Amino acid sequence: MKLTVLSGGVGGARFTRGLLAHLARTAPGSQVTVIANTGDDMWLHGVRVCPDLDTLMYTLGGAVHEEQGWGRREESSRVSADLAAYDVGWEWFTLGDLDLATHLARTQWLREGLTLSEATARLSARWRLAEQGVRLLPMSDQPVETHVEVDGGLIHFEEWWVRHRAALPARRFVQVGLDRASAAPGVLAAITDADAVLLPPSNPVVSVGTILAVPGIREAVRATRAPVVGVSPIIGGAPVRGMAAECLAAIGVSATAEGVARHYGLRERGGVLDGWLVDTADAATAELLAADGWRSAATDTLMRDVPATARIAAELLALAGR
Amino acid sequence: MKLTVLSGGVGGARFTRGLLAHLARTAPGSQVTVIANTGDDMWLHGVRVCPDLDTLMYTLGGAVHEEQGWGRREESSRVSADLAAYDVGWEWFTLGDLDLATHLARTQWLREGLTLSEATARLSARWRLAEQGVRLLPMSDQPVETHVEVDGGLIHFEEWWVRHRAALPARRFVQVGLDRASAAPGVLAAITDADAVLLPPSNPVVSVGTILAVPGIREAVRATRAPVVGVSPIIGGAPVRGMAAECLAAIGVSATAEGVARHYGLRERGGVLDGWLVDTADAATAELLAADGWRSAATDTLMRDVPATARIAAELLALAGR
Repeated sequence: MKLTVLSGGVGGARFTRGLLAHLARTAPGSQVTVIANTGDDMWLHGVRVCPDLDTLMYTLGGAVHEEQGWGRREESSRVSADLAAYDVGWEWFTLGDLDLATHLARTQWLREGLTLSEATARLSARWRLAEQGVRLLPMSDQPVETHVEVDGGLIHFEEWWVRHRAALPARRFVQVGLDRASAAPGVLAAITDADAVLLPPSNPVVSVGTILAVPGIREAVRATRAPVVGVSPIIGGAPVRGMAAECLAAIGVSATAEGVARHYGLRERGGVLDGWLVDTADAATAELLAADGWRSAATDTLMRDVPATARIAAELLALAGR
Repeated sequence: MKLTVLSGGVGGARFTRGLLAHLARTAPGSQVTVIANTGDDMWLHGVRVCPDLDTLMYTLGGAVHEEQGWGRREESSRVSADLAAYDVGWEWFTLGDLDLATHLARTQWLREGLTLSEATARLSARWRLAEQGVRLLPMSDQPVETHVEVDGGLIHFEEWWVRHRAALPARRFVQVGLDRASAAPGVLAAITDADAVLLPPSNPVVSVGTILAVPGIREAVRATRAPVVGVSPIIGGAPVRGMAAECLAAIGVSATAEGVARHYGLRERGGVLDGWLVDTADAATAELLAADGWRSAATDTLMRDVPATARIAAELLALAGR
């Protein structure tokens, strides 16, 4: 099977790990292409930081800090602590020592002239992604950085998210660089040629929304002959994790399983989805969507561990196959 | 007193520390400008590494690894160890975690558009150089990188020095970028306006030699009304430290106190020196030079500790004052 996942960080990485576990059992030899959001990327202290790509690599590579969901296991912050003495700013952003090794390798290769795709392929080799049937692609090789309009102007998404814990009211999100960006090599083909395109329970606004905003990607998702199905990141009216509600509020979408489904929209009516998997807490939403022409189902969508997540992935594939 | 030191890394840093100790006792309020060699600088893993500037900051800031002579005390290498798993090369170059904080801060500021002089001033603030009456200047704000011609072509100086321990026969040294370089702001004035210009026992070829090669610097040293005096880095026919002999051999200069003196040359005959302080082991050289028109003296020039080095600095100033 050829599957393509449009992924943010923690949620998308955990979902993909479960998907791989399911495929290893049921469809060995499957190929999974993960198209990662790079809108949270930034230059920090002269190095290129790509939070979602790294969370995906560490999670699929078995090196992620499990409780935290991102960053490396057994991480330390000796460099950061010393760097603070130079008064360089951004001291609220955790730059782990092991994580820094990734940023340095990536920065070296980018400075040598490699594209982000090429640098990502080199980094992925260490984490044995190809051996697991995974190809990790950035959504674009051009820098696209999400900024947030708050009182006082635009700030980088990471400043809003990490420093202010999404507590500053956001008026809108601006993807800086989007007009000069195009989908990275392989991205559009992976959507067009897939047997199914999957939206994990990633942030619909600043993760999946940013990927879809890259010129050509939304069009490819709309045009593919593959079914496009997603898992709701909202359970019973609250995001499972992260601060998706604040992001949804900023764009005027209600933080419910139905609200997000309507935001993505049904493909036959101009949207990007054919199906939507919701939690059992939102069973009524599943029925309502089904009555409205969606492929929809309800199941336990909490990604407690890898087996639970493998089961969710199986349910999503079943929905795609209907 | 206004003193200007043309310095490489370890030797120059230790000398300057002794000089400051001497001045604190005998001439408080003195201003010392240190012009540092930046020919060993490089981009490594996307960050800018300036070995001699850093050795000077750490030494004068009281944070140097004392036995080693360079790098930070209580250094670790967690980032480097992890970086090696990405197969990025240059694994033989020690990139300490604490040292990396300096490189990251510098790189951030350079990428923001600051010059190396400006970035160096910001870094120096942490190490309280101004409070000690020290101004640390790079020789140039333009990148000048020493490369070494060996069998098979040119390699970066650090590769020859650190990786090959100067064991590959060197044919010549090439300062890449020299033709587009000029002295950094303040450098020429510091030489012109000094009460004395001092050459510490730094490497005469790849440290002091590189500084003198920057357009305008040799001319300023030749033209200044201040006396220009130096301490021999060679004692009894052998370099005190480092691999100066290999560098001298490459340019056809004998590794003796006299050989180096003749290489620098007497100012009134087209060289850059008025005086040369040698070790007691080379007392005969001092007499020979004195008979030849040099200000010269012999003393114990081994920089064992700060008091011993302060005494050497005092002797050098006495020579300058003759």
